[in-house]
Amino acid sequence: MNIVRYPEKAHWQSLLKRPALNQGALELTVKGIIEEVAGRGDAAVRDYTMEFDGVALESLLVPPPEIALAGTRIPDSLKSAIGEAMVNIRSFHLKQVPEPVGPVVTAAGVRCWQKPVPIDSVGLYVPGGSAPLLSTALMLGIPAQIAGCGEVILATPPDVDGNVNPSILYIARLLGIEKVFRVGGAQAIAAMAYGTESIPAVHKIFGPGNQYVTMAKQIVSRDRVAIDMPAGPSELAVVADDTSDAAFIASDLLSQAEHGPDSQVVLFTDSPSLTERVQEEIRSQLALLPRREIASIALKNSRLILLKDQLEIMEMVNRYAPEHLIIVTSNYTELSEKVVNAGSVFLGPYTPESAGDYASGTNHTLPTNGWAHSHSGVNMDSFYKKITFQEISEYGLHNIGEAIMTMAEAEQLKAHSNAVACRLKSKSDG
Amino acid sequence: MNIVRYPEKAHWQSLLKRPALNQGALELTVKGIIEEVAGRGDAAVRDYTMEFDGVALESLLVPPPEIALAGTRIPDSLKSAIGEAMVNIRSFHLKQVPEPVGPVVTAAGVRCWQKPVPIDSVGLYVPGGSAPLLSTALMLGIPAQIAGCGEVILATPPDVDGNVNPSILYIARLLGIEKVFRVGGAQAIAAMAYGTESIPAVHKIFGPGNQYVTMAKQIVSRDRVAIDMPAGPSELAVVADDTSDAAFIASDLLSQAEHGPDSQVVLFTDSPSLTERVQEEIRSQLALLPRREIASIALKNSRLILLKDQLEIMEMVNRYAPEHLIIVTSNYTELSEKVVNAGSVFLGPYTPESAGDYASGTNHTLPTNGWAHSHSGVNMDSFYKKITFQEISEYGLHNIGEAIMTMAEAEQLKAHSNAVACRLKSKSDG
Repeated sequence: MNIVRYPEKAHWQSLLKRPALNQGALELTVKGIIEEVAGRGDAAVRDYTMEFDGVALESLLVPPPEIALAGTRIPDSLKSAIGEAMVNIRSFHLKQVPEPVGPVVTAAGVRCWQKPVPIDSVGLYVPGGSAPLLSTALMLGIPAQIAGCGEVILATPPDVDGNVNPSILYIARLLGIEKVFRVGGAQAIAAMAYGTESIPAVHKIFGPGNQYVTMAKQIVSRDRVAIDMPAGPSELAVVADDTSDAAFIASDLLSQAEHGPDSQVVLFTDSPSLTERVQEEIRSQLALLPRREIASIALKNSRLILLKDQLEIMEMVNRYAPEHLIIVTSNYTELSEKVVNAGSVFLGPYTPESAGDYASGTNHTLPTNGWAHSHSGVNMDSFYKKITFQEISEYGLHNIGEAIMTMAEAEQLKAHSNAVACRLKSKSDG
Repeated sequence: MNIVRYPEKAHWQSLLKRPALNQGALELTVKGIIEEVAGRGDAAVRDYTMEFDGVALESLLVPPPEIALAGTRIPDSLKSAIGEAMVNIRSFHLKQVPEPVGPVVTAAGVRCWQKPVPIDSVGLYVPGGSAPLLSTALMLGIPAQIAGCGEVILATPPDVDGNVNPSILYIARLLGIEKVFRVGGAQAIAAMAYGTESIPAVHKIFGPGNQYVTMAKQIVSRDRVAIDMPAGPSELAVVADDTSDAAFIASDLLSQAEHGPDSQVVLFTDSPSLTERVQEEIRSQLALLPRREIASIALKNSRLILLKDQLEIMEMVNRYAPEHLIIVTSNYTELSEKVVNAGSVFLGPYTPESAGDYASGTNHTLPTNGWAHSHSGVNMDSFYKKITFQEISEYGLHNIGEAIMTMAEAEQLKAHSNAVACRLKSKSDG
């Protein structure tokens, strides 16, 4: 990991650059898959599952008995961990349920209100394959269940025997998700966007995935279906000072670096000695990791940045807008107040980022690639739309009618003005 | 306007189709404009302003004295209407300001909270030209001001003399927006996304516009900047019964139809005689409208749909997911409870849709083209992102650490587990 010492502001932009992805060829491939699935439905989904997952599936739907019995196929320790995580995630998300606003009497006779209504069908994508992301099933399934979305379906890739990891099925059962489809990749996203004979089309698709999945979500979202957010490779920034524990920091940086070769981790500090100690710790911890090859590629995109003070550090962090941000300075509470752009923030020495990935209660589906400037992570709002309502009395329309007509006429929209005029006239007629 | 009587459900989908747009050629043109502006900055913006607006601009920024004096150039009646609308819009949006959630103690020693933080720079696009949409300046500027977004800029096209409509400048002054750029079209969106010498890049762009603006917003949102929503031609659905006033309904249908030739309006009713009466009223009111040519094209995409009962009506309305929905049946309160998919709902005979366009207090920037299935209209949330925070004590990590490590190892992410293990070990060492 490179140490960058006291960079000038003119160089910040290039230092904070994310690893670039080549999207052109990918877009063409994924568009092809989407068109096939939109046109040929289940048959196309089966063909791609054969091609990419190497398995010929009869039914795309996981048979209900398999879901019912999934609990017998995973160890008690994992069931207990899932149960514990579920309680914490549910308790934090329950507090976020959006409330109705109003009715507000904005003017005499004019009542306006806003009502959150759950999205009536949602599709949850859970990456699988070698390492099934069971935690994602929790992070998406729990808020969908709390919101009470009418139809909740889950798609996740099958293994070479055509099976879905039992821990994902066990979570589906706990959350009452009955329709689990053993379909992954761009074909899963296309199926949930356009619908097939067995997979229903939904109105919003959630979940992370590889570059095919992410590109497919982007493409279908242009004209068809909402998506949770533009997703991308995982990121972590750590803000630390001379008092911080180098071993803890190295373990956190490595935990994000192991996600994939295009992950990025950055340390921001004002302590020259800390950068050296972290570099040393990374070297020794990395050697022991099963995914050390992936992590070392990610570390090439990563930096230890030495800055002159905490003011500069927070300015640069906010410019970066990291997905995950750990603050472990001695004054971490004070610095946490200065966070403007970040997905999720972890405070103090005993708050590793992996706590939020699994079990503390916050959601782990977060904006990457600088999108934290403008996007929230998945939260209860993500499963609702907020509809406004208004009711105006005859008196109310007399009250605000003149203002409406004046403005409509200034915009040269006469029919807008007429809609008020004909009602006011009707009154004076009566 | 065609009357469709008792359609079978199998035909609903095609009856509810929106007018299709040909996007291919448009996308190429707009991509060209965006690349030029991203590459050549102000010079490109000036060239396009010459080409599309027919005016050679010196400064793209409206000079501050012009903003300060705008109030002297518009009639008092309009100033008073703007003031009244502003009070109502502000009072409804103030009630929507998102609140922090928590801290929630999800498990002993584990505190999680969520904090809404305003997006630090936003760009508001206000369509102009022949009919300047001053109401849009209110609908976007008021929530941006309430949220306290750090930088708020406004772009709107100049007239052939290079001037911006004084009512828009007057609103900018009332809202404290100092940077108003006389730039419109795709070049305005590109400038706000990529920044130029005079126009700063922002993190989120709001506002409606013609097909060039809409396409530009879609393109820049793919890799650069957030947008409020996928916008499209305006829509209105009206639900009415035998007791409803045909003249009122016709005036509402025409008020949306006059927006543009690709607007769509639909009446849903169980009253055969009402469809005839509304058809008659439309004929006579249309003849008197200045924008009757535009409206009559829009009416060709529009329908009066007769259904057997209110159950079917609400099912079809929710399937359509209209941007605007007026309910004027005698039991409108009861039916309003059944609304699942709509942007904004107008209840009762004295609540024309144009009230919400201007002055009742609700926002008029709403999801079109079926996006109301999954998207909210612009509301206070649109100007914030919600950042989660967590702080775990040493005890707290001991409490949930086992669950984290068990799940991380089930996902084969050893470094995630290590980040907990090294902290727990450190404790038992100590």
